Amino acid sequence: MKTVNLKEKLARVATHWDPHVIADYNGNDVMVVKFKGEFPFHKHDTTDDFFLVLEGEMVMDIEGEPSRPVRAGEMFIVPRGVVHRPRAVEEVEVLLIEPKGEPNTGDSNREPAAKPRI
Amino acid sequence: MKTVNLKEKLARVATHWDPHVIADYNGNDVMVVKFKGEFPFHKHDTTDDFFLVLEGEMVMDIEGEPSRPVRAGEMFIVPRGVVHRPRAVEEVEVLLIEPKGEPNTGDSNREPAAKPRI
Repeated sequence: MKTVNLKEKLARVATHWDPHVIADYNGNDVMVVKFKGEFPFHKHDTTDDFFLVLEGEMVMDIEGEPSRPVRAGEMFIVPRGVVHRPRAVEEVEVLLIEPKGEPNTGDSNREPAAKPRI
Repeated sequence: MKTVNLKEKLARVATHWDPHVIADYNGNDVMVVKFKGEFPFHKHDTTDDFFLVLEGEMVMDIEGEPSRPVRAGEMFIVPRGVVHRPRAVEEVEVLLIEPKGEPNTGDSNREPAAKPRI
């Protein structure tokens, strides 16, 4: 039980698409992650997917819909079952919340991240 | 399903200790709230309580422990059952997550907030 500084935690993240757990909330992992480039399209059948951009700008591509820019200070929650792809031209820093045990890659073929705790 | 700008939402919040719902995540209300002054000490027996300071500085008082400052860019998650009191000398802006139906006042005698959606 302590105050968690997001920038301090992000300074310890050196890789892209590699969420690191910084806190727990009711069976969810609260994570920080850096993105750059494109993730695969995927969906999570049993959970919403929480993104809050802390620094930089990302784009959320949604199957069959216009893409949405998501900038620092903006949040995007992907409802369960919706096929989506986060991407970023330049590195972006994101707060991510997913239930413990949920692969960050959803139903895609990409290897799920290990989600280490920092 | 859309990008939510936290500052735009906070501009619509005129009162203190009055969380406003801005999104849904797996049965939780994602809210913005402005604090100033002292809230009552309280606990939530069945849920953790998620605070992320967006602007300004608050203090989290914890029964029987040292108080914790929580500044912009910092998060504090109060585990279920822990008696706590958020307070702020100057107005602070906070992102708050609680399960739907959970009174923001926990087990205190204070009237729970209505949690309007904006």
